[in-house]
Amino acid sequence: MDKFDFWDIEQVNFTLTEGFEMKSLKSLNYGIVGLGIMGGSFAKAIRLNILSQNGSTGKILVCNRSTACLSQAVSEGIADETYTSDRVQEMLPKCDVLFICLYPHATLDFLKTNKEFFKSGAIVTDISGVKGIFEKELPEILRNDVDFIIGHPMAGGEKEGYANSKAEFFVNHNYILCEQKFNKKENLDLMREFIASIGFTRITETTTDIHDYKIGFTSQLCHVIASALVESAEDPEITAFGGGSFEDLTRIALINAPLWTELFISNKEKLVAHIESFEKQIERFKTAIANEDSESLKAILEDTREKRLAMGSIRTINK
Amino acid sequence: MDKFDFWDIEQVNFTLTEGFEMKSLKSLNYGIVGLGIMGGSFAKAIRLNILSQNGSTGKILVCNRSTACLSQAVSEGIADETYTSDRVQEMLPKCDVLFICLYPHATLDFLKTNKEFFKSGAIVTDISGVKGIFEKELPEILRNDVDFIIGHPMAGGEKEGYANSKAEFFVNHNYILCEQKFNKKENLDLMREFIASIGFTRITETTTDIHDYKIGFTSQLCHVIASALVESAEDPEITAFGGGSFEDLTRIALINAPLWTELFISNKEKLVAHIESFEKQIERFKTAIANEDSESLKAILEDTREKRLAMGSIRTINK
Repeated sequence: MDKFDFWDIEQVNFTLTEGFEMKSLKSLNYGIVGLGIMGGSFAKAIRLNILSQNGSTGKILVCNRSTACLSQAVSEGIADETYTSDRVQEMLPKCDVLFICLYPHATLDFLKTNKEFFKSGAIVTDISGVKGIFEKELPEILRNDVDFIIGHPMAGGEKEGYANSKAEFFVNHNYILCEQKFNKKENLDLMREFIASIGFTRITETTTDIHDYKIGFTSQLCHVIASALVESAEDPEITAFGGGSFEDLTRIALINAPLWTELFISNKEKLVAHIESFEKQIERFKTAIANEDSESLKAILEDTREKRLAMGSIRTINK
Repeated sequence: MDKFDFWDIEQVNFTLTEGFEMKSLKSLNYGIVGLGIMGGSFAKAIRLNILSQNGSTGKILVCNRSTACLSQAVSEGIADETYTSDRVQEMLPKCDVLFICLYPHATLDFLKTNKEFFKSGAIVTDISGVKGIFEKELPEILRNDVDFIIGHPMAGGEKEGYANSKAEFFVNHNYILCEQKFNKKENLDLMREFIASIGFTRITETTTDIHDYKIGFTSQLCHVIASALVESAEDPEITAFGGGSFEDLTRIALINAPLWTELFISNKEKLVAHIESFEKQIERFKTAIANEDSESLKAILEDTREKRLAMGSIRTINK
């Protein structure tokens, strides 16, 4: 289960950029389907980091169901062209790189329904938090002259919507890529260059299976735990007794219910396995505490500290 | 179990200060036993907020087992007088307000062993994360002419020691006071004035029993969960897949093993009850996921979001 690679962008930046000139990114048209916090942050990060460069000729095209954020994106100078969902088929043929920033199954449906409209030679990529569902349906998604790159920008927040998107959203975060046999090397390289350009500091490359297993742990299990902790609170004024721990553990419990219901159930088997392994550890702690077994408890906690230190951090420990 | 009061200092500041002049705090000698992150932060916060005022005549006296931080505290202008542990009996008779910043049972032992050396009329207070153990042994701790105020500054961090202490450590945090029948009103008021002066923004007043029950939830249960989550990670490079959730949930897993072993076991019954109620919630989520019961899962998660929103925050949500 542990086959994956990751590398810090800072270390490999030169190698990365050697083959590509920034102009390749500067001259592309970027399409964004779904202008929420993720889609909006992509648009803003592209505007700030790529299309504000001297000599940039690319455009940002955005599509969204509701129009309020479309107008806002234009007035903020983020979007060049906007489309409501019913007009997306006019937008798609113009996009060199297309980001589908929808919920997982909506992304899958979108890819199937609209594949004939994609620009020939385009890169199409997603942001979904589960990946197995895509690999299974690849034959229905793929077109010979369009490259579908399975990706996952590992950034999120309890605040949703375009209003909370920002260009700096991805800074110091991880991006996961699940390379497929059919992906063209030059497209993957362009994608890596793009990812580095908008602030991510690490790219992790792995399979969809390992992605779902690891994300089932770092993301989905954590959301289950945070939610279960809130649900087990008897007292809405409990933060009067908070020192930071409860707040840290439950930040992500300001949860988007439909999205996470979909993520949890789409990754059911791996997530349930993680929950069960977590339950065993909780039981181990409970037993040591109930038995007043100081020696065992101290030994476990020392191990915990060592393990956590060894894991490093993307941002929290050193902030 | 829910009998407690809390109030935001901002709202009551005028009432608080009406009866007291800042000079009362400015003219006191503060003693700190144990110069770790908590003791050090008290010393620095007192120096910054109280004893840097014009006309202040009070001193900061500190005692610690090892001498390195004592020298540092003097060279930084934080401590006026320093004492190694074997000379603490020379320090105690000089202290108007004495903070015992040791582990819970060490605090208890200190109070019993040294009570004859406290200054007559002094306020002695502790920072321990469990309170029941003190109430049980009050007869052995108390002296008629010394007021022991049971307190708990709700601030902490994964970084330990004087080197990580800072004057701003307590800003925007909660302080819990467990008033006892024998406490003098003027001493409690002085303590509240002191707490407000060094940056805390909320004081929660309750019994030791409720303190231990609530802290068993917001603090100890959270540390058990964070530790169990780290222990259930198979992979030391898991943060390559982190988007922030895992890091948030395990910040506190950089745990001080001897301290938390003591806290967990000292509050065994209440903590085990909290763990069991949390386990039931985890099981509820697991069942809904395993059964692909989208409707139930969505309903629970919507409830979770509402509950968490209603709880408010001391700092995390709005940061």
